[in-house]
Amino acid sequence: MAKRALHIQSPDEAEIVFYEAFTRGDVAVMSALWSEGDVVCVHPGSGVISGHNAVVRSWRHILENSRGGDIQYTVMKKMQTDDLAVHVVTEEVMVNAVTVAVVIATNTYQRFAQNWLMVEHHASIVQQRREGETLQ
Amino acid sequence: MAKRALHIQSPDEAEIVFYEAFTRGDVAVMSALWSEGDVVCVHPGSGVISGHNAVVRSWRHILENSRGGDIQYTVMKKMQTDDLAVHVVTEEVMVNAVTVAVVIATNTYQRFAQNWLMVEHHASIVQQRREGETLQ
Repeated sequence: MAKRALHIQSPDEAEIVFYEAFTRGDVAVMSALWSEGDVVCVHPGSGVISGHNAVVRSWRHILENSRGGDIQYTVMKKMQTDDLAVHVVTEEVMVNAVTVAVVIATNTYQRFAQNWLMVEHHASIVQQRREGETLQ
Repeated sequence: MAKRALHIQSPDEAEIVFYEAFTRGDVAVMSALWSEGDVVCVHPGSGVISGHNAVVRSWRHILENSRGGDIQYTVMKKMQTDDLAVHVVTEEVMVNAVTVAVVIATNTYQRFAQNWLMVEHHASIVQQRREGETLQ
């Protein structure tokens, strides 16, 4: 899918496109949503993955190996200027209507000539804690 | 420490203040560096911590319970507009000159009247992987 086929007029729209592509396993849309520039992605437990090709390859791997299911996301915080937006999002990964993981994501979007595109995704899994455990 | 005692003129300066406070365990500077607004913080494995008071409380807990050591950080990517900056940083946590953990952080800074202040910190630990393991 060419980026000119997208018409993403806001960070909120970009976020909808991102989670639809994630849920449907749509690598073409995911690839188009990411800026061609010097983007960065951090999957749960991973280091920094840099550059459009490496980032899309990592998503292809994830989407082709996911077992289906749904992601329900809640935007916890938005920080935005005219050209840059940062959203902190809680993702509940659901399989058969059961939450199997809770992930926190920072999603950063940048405004380009035609579209708002993704330039960063940083995800981490929320660990279950026993009472009294420390934060780190 | 009052925010008016700070004179942080750029996101890079804010980042230096952040890691100095982190390394020295300086809760007062850490508190002053965070905006009083609706800030968010995600420590490794934690959920979203919201609001200045809760965020500073979480840092007090971490700084008072840390065993010392050093943090060497490398900025992997900067995204910046006039009023908002997002830095993706690799943190190496060193104890006795040995790396005990590698953490990826997204640090978001916002420009206010007097200072650039921190409005988001999202940290996740890089897991060691065996050859052939998948990303998630």
